[in-house]
Amino acid sequence: MTDSSTNMRLKLPITCFILEIILIILFGVLVVYDHDTDAKAFNKNMKMNNSTGGGNDFYYRYPSFQDVHVMIFIGFGFLMTFLQRYGFSSVGFNFLIAALSLQWATLMQGFFHGLHNGKIHIGVESMINADFCTGSVLISFGAVLGKTSPLQLLIMAVFEVTLFAVNEFILLSILGTRDAGGSMTIHTFGAYFGLMVTRILYRPKLEQSKHKNSSVYHSDLFAMIGTIYLWMFWPSFNSAVTSHGDPQHRTAMNTYYSLAACTLSTYAMSALTAHDGKLDMVHIQNAALAGGVAAGTAGEMMLTPFGSMIVGFLAGIISVLGYKYLSPILEEKLKIQDTCGVHNLHGMPGVLGAIVGAVTTAVVPKEVYGNGLEKVFPDVASGDRETTYQAGMQALSLAITLGIALFGGLIVGFILKLPVLGAPRDNACFEDSVYWEVSLIKEDS
Amino acid sequence: MTDSSTNMRLKLPITCFILEIILIILFGVLVVYDHDTDAKAFNKNMKMNNSTGGGNDFYYRYPSFQDVHVMIFIGFGFLMTFLQRYGFSSVGFNFLIAALSLQWATLMQGFFHGLHNGKIHIGVESMINADFCTGSVLISFGAVLGKTSPLQLLIMAVFEVTLFAVNEFILLSILGTRDAGGSMTIHTFGAYFGLMVTRILYRPKLEQSKHKNSSVYHSDLFAMIGTIYLWMFWPSFNSAVTSHGDPQHRTAMNTYYSLAACTLSTYAMSALTAHDGKLDMVHIQNAALAGGVAAGTAGEMMLTPFGSMIVGFLAGIISVLGYKYLSPILEEKLKIQDTCGVHNLHGMPGVLGAIVGAVTTAVVPKEVYGNGLEKVFPDVASGDRETTYQAGMQALSLAITLGIALFGGLIVGFILKLPVLGAPRDNACFEDSVYWEVSLIKEDS
Amino acid sequence: MTDSSTNMRLKLPITCFILEIILIILFGVLVVYDHDTDAKAFNKNMKMNNSTGGGNDFYYRYPSFQDVHVMIFIGFGFLMTFLQRYGFSSVGFNFLIAALSLQWATLMQGFFHGLHNGKIHIGVESMINADFCTGSVLISFGAVLGKTSPLQLLIMAVFEVTLFAVNEFILLSILGTRDAGGSMTIHTFGAYFGLMVTRILYRPKLEQSKHKNSSVYHSDLFAMIGTIYLWMFWPSFNSAVTSHGDPQHRTAMNTYYSLAACTLSTYAMSALTAHDGKLDMVHIQNAALAGGVAAGTAGEMMLTPFGSMIVGFLAGIISVLGYKYLSPILEEKLKIQDTCGVHNLHGMPGVLGAIVGAVTTAVVPKEVYGNGLEKVFPDVASGDRETTYQAGMQALSLAITLGIALFGGLIVGFILKLPVLGAPRDNACFEDSVYWEVSLIKEDS
Repeated sequence: MTDSSTNMRLKLPITCFILEIILIILFGVLVVYDHDTDAKAFNKNMKMNNSTGGGNDFYYRYPSFQDVHVMIFIGFGFLMTFLQRYGFSSVGFNFLIAALSLQWATLMQGFFHGLHNGKIHIGVESMINADFCTGSVLISFGAVLGKTSPLQLLIMAVFEVTLFAVNEFILLSILGTRDAGGSMTIHTFGAYFGLMVTRILYRPKLEQSKHKNSSVYHSDLFAMIGTIYLWMFWPSFNSAVTSHGDPQHRTAMNTYYSLAACTLSTYAMSALTAHDGKLDMVHIQNAALAGGVAAGTAGEMMLTPFGSMIVGFLAGIISVLGYKYLSPILEEKLKIQDTCGVHNLHGMPGVLGAIVGAVTTAVVPKEVYGNGLEKVFPDVASGDRETTYQAGMQALSLAITLGIALFGGLIVGFILKLPVLGAPRDNACFEDSVYWEVSLIKEDS
Repeated sequence: MTDSSTNMRLKLPITCFILEIILIILFGVLVVYDHDTDAKAFNKNMKMNNSTGGGNDFYYRYPSFQDVHVMIFIGFGFLMTFLQRYGFSSVGFNFLIAALSLQWATLMQGFFHGLHNGKIHIGVESMINADFCTGSVLISFGAVLGKTSPLQLLIMAVFEVTLFAVNEFILLSILGTRDAGGSMTIHTFGAYFGLMVTRILYRPKLEQSKHKNSSVYHSDLFAMIGTIYLWMFWPSFNSAVTSHGDPQHRTAMNTYYSLAACTLSTYAMSALTAHDGKLDMVHIQNAALAGGVAAGTAGEMMLTPFGSMIVGFLAGIISVLGYKYLSPILEEKLKIQDTCGVHNLHGMPGVLGAIVGAVTTAVVPKEVYGNGLEKVFPDVASGDRETTYQAGMQALSLAITLGIALFGGLIVGFILKLPVLGAPRDNACFEDSVYWEVSLIKEDS
Repeated sequence: MTDSSTNMRLKLPITCFILEIILIILFGVLVVYDHDTDAKAFNKNMKMNNSTGGGNDFYYRYPSFQDVHVMIFIGFGFLMTFLQRYGFSSVGFNFLIAALSLQWATLMQGFFHGLHNGKIHIGVESMINADFCTGSVLISFGAVLGKTSPLQLLIMAVFEVTLFAVNEFILLSILGTRDAGGSMTIHTFGAYFGLMVTRILYRPKLEQSKHKNSSVYHSDLFAMIGTIYLWMFWPSFNSAVTSHGDPQHRTAMNTYYSLAACTLSTYAMSALTAHDGKLDMVHIQNAALAGGVAAGTAGEMMLTPFGSMIVGFLAGIISVLGYKYLSPILEEKLKIQDTCGVHNLHGMPGVLGAIVGAVTTAVVPKEVYGNGLEKVFPDVASGDRETTYQAGMQALSLAITLGIALFGGLIVGFILKLPVLGAPRDNACFEDSVYWEVSLIKEDS
């Protein structure tokens, strides 16, 4: 099952060691504790600080961070275990590229918006942002799942994290766009980047591995672990880096109702689109999450639970329709082999979320926010711009994100075609034993 | 495996769409952000509020909410995956009816005790309460597991949530009963409601599906995921809506020790009641949790860790004895087919918890609470009633709960008998493939 | 599969009942609520306390507690399910001995450092410490996994918890050592204690069960649930009982980067040491966690992310090398049958962590801490000792820990050899059916 090009004996260790050593050196040179993690800085003036340390940002953000962390490592990791013989790779490569990405993201994001006197200051908020960026890489992983070597994935992660940070910088810092839950920066970017990569890596003979590109009973149950964790913690995801107080509270609640409504419409559409009315696990595992994606931008706004539920309801419908009717077309006509259907879970719902964000920005009068306006739209509160201008920036940001994602995916896709990177052969896709020691003993019970 | 009545092609989508659209409309008309989630209200007077937003209730309750959320979706969902061929339905229907119930519960509970000027105000506490109500529905689901269509479950959820809110209103608002962890409102109610429903739905020929009403090796391991999450987060469950400060802290700790003691007595009883001394997974998966149920009412009181451990110890014993000796009697003599044994996990321990709550209320002198009395027994602290009167109300509440649950279950059970709701045939119970696309490929390893 | 000695019909219930009744009596006599969990004490002077209860330690430590709790019951429990036919015992015995240990630890640790006027005061911090002590017992369980009866494990837990508390008291209270994440007190102690116990219980004919001492495909996926949860929540583990504020924040962050670097070096070494470059699940499941262990002592210090990453990087390398080359030698030459390889995951990385702690103490000037020094090194801040003296105490603590662990393991190992304790026969190790009812039905899919 192994040929020389897929043998990782030297390639993988060398790549991991070089990357990690570069990371360690750059952390040594560039990264310092921020005000809340540095012993001296936080305790500089003991009288001004709460002596119990209660004012530390850790207590406002760490629970959210851990929920996000669970989504990244358990949620994404187990969601992809649905394939019958690719569970080790799904969880294991997810683990590897996430561990790399969060380190590299700390540097890239810090470089673009955490620099103080030439040093990158880090704390719990940068940890959340690094996990967010990682999430984007894992979305792209979903598109190419089963068809790439760990080496290709590491290379993809390095480039994608970098482009993610550029796009995020343009949106959040230059355009002043609001996107707390990342409908654009995370989901739209990750999905379209991954779709372009998988397009470039198109395998005309992938049907040689077709029998393995499906689930078995227990693999679907493992995948449901991922689904449910993503679903439960999405309110934490969308609210993790909003302003303290009402925006964080409101975002979590809006997302909660968006997801609940999305779940109902997902089940409805799954039964409706099946010829015999039977529910399809693929829909449940994926489309029920679209409500979280679609509430990513507008979640912190005064969207109301009513608005959130409409958004979630639509997201579920769109996503199931995508799995049922659009994915086969993308594969046949556009040659996009999207293993996990990230276009249906992250792509279209991400675009929907961006549009909802722009519309909500435009239509909710700023008086509705009262004194809370500055926490959500600081540029509007300061009088620098009107809500309509803000809404325009939101819409522009979607276009920019799509552009950078597609162009970036194009370049990176060609890089990943290098034979030295050890992609599996067409008849050995979706198969753990190419890169993992797999026991040959038959399971008995 | 499908006949026309169990075909959900139109029934399920129509029901889901109608329910969700009604929910969205009612949310639009009735539901608004509360003081802590509304941008204007929370920031009305910037000087009076902590400018960092630290005083928001989100920071006191959201971690508890997420633990409860995990119990509802992972805990209940995976606990029921023990059946060999019903894992998709266990997790999947749990997911569906929970998503519906939490929305409907927001309205029903808000209608009864969240109305301000005709609007329902919502925030993290209402989210926890909605999850609590959902938990009650999932307990009833456990009693009918494997024998109902998703349509029946949705209908059951709508009625049960409504009755739950009525019972909760009578107990907490009219009688001034204390039941923070829901020994009565959640567990006793959910269990006896479900038991009555399954009694009405009695299937004399259920032995036709008997070979599927059991576990296999891996399904028991999936179920242990549910068990362990329920066990770990039960301290959060019982303490999630207590008063801030010492009551929340104390409730979590009492529950922790109750569960630990319960686990020891469960293992002891499981070995003792087996003819060959071998432990039975059914007991471990379920009875070890009874200590959490039984600490649901008295957990916030000055029960002491000593008292908590006695309660948990007894709960474990009762629960195992119930599984071993009472369940077969209930099935044979009373025709109650209780798939998950919810009578042993939620029914009897819930009643025990209610009794422990009444006794603790009566016997602990109010001086023990000092100035903390008003957080636990506000009516006693205000001088409106004595502890004995409060204890009487606690006992009365148990009787009312049992009455409403049994009567409600009776009515709803007959409603669920409507053939149009598509229950599975007697020889197709405990079988995913009636309502789910199930891969026919043999798993290999 | 059962002979009379392994029949637990009476032995296990009697032991559980006696232990639990003793615990309940001792809790009744000795244990009281602490200042933050007692209604009267916390509310003694309403004006001095925040009326909302926000100053309660619950809000600073409970989220960390729950993360630790997940590590103990899900993390350790599922990590050990890798064996093909020992999943019930891995999760189930883990559950049993953890439930016992946390109660007994409350008393033992309380006796040594929680006594006030003859009473043990408990709250969320004591709950975390009890879970920590439990973790140490579970590490030892990993060394003897598959070769012991539940009765042996309960006896081991009673003794080990006691010795743990003695060692912890000597280190933290007498020597003033810092070890917030327990590189020494938890990991080194638990590992070497367990290794000595398994040495004493050496089975020359264990090859009779060799075919069961391995994984199958799905058991490895269950084990990954344990791995990932341990990995994700290790930052919470190491920071759970540090001082509030910057130390807690910094510890979590240091651990996060240590683990990320460790993951990269683990994957690198796993591929490098395989003859065909294929990754080995044993390494991924275990060695990737060594970075958390190794950051246990120095995590709260000003180690910097740079330093943390170096530590994690080295820990991953050492751990994989241990699995590949050292474990076979330990088994053949020293007759140490270490089922889970705890020497590689907890032993060597624990020692590394202790050394890193001593070195960091010595080399980071106290000026770096500024006014924050007293939160990390109170004895240095008060002028009682110099950093070099503190570093000496750190090093001495490692030696003491090793001594107590090895000596304690020696004694306890001989106690566990009592035939009445019902160890499985040599040809029935790594097999659930000795102590559990196991369904004989063949799983189909």
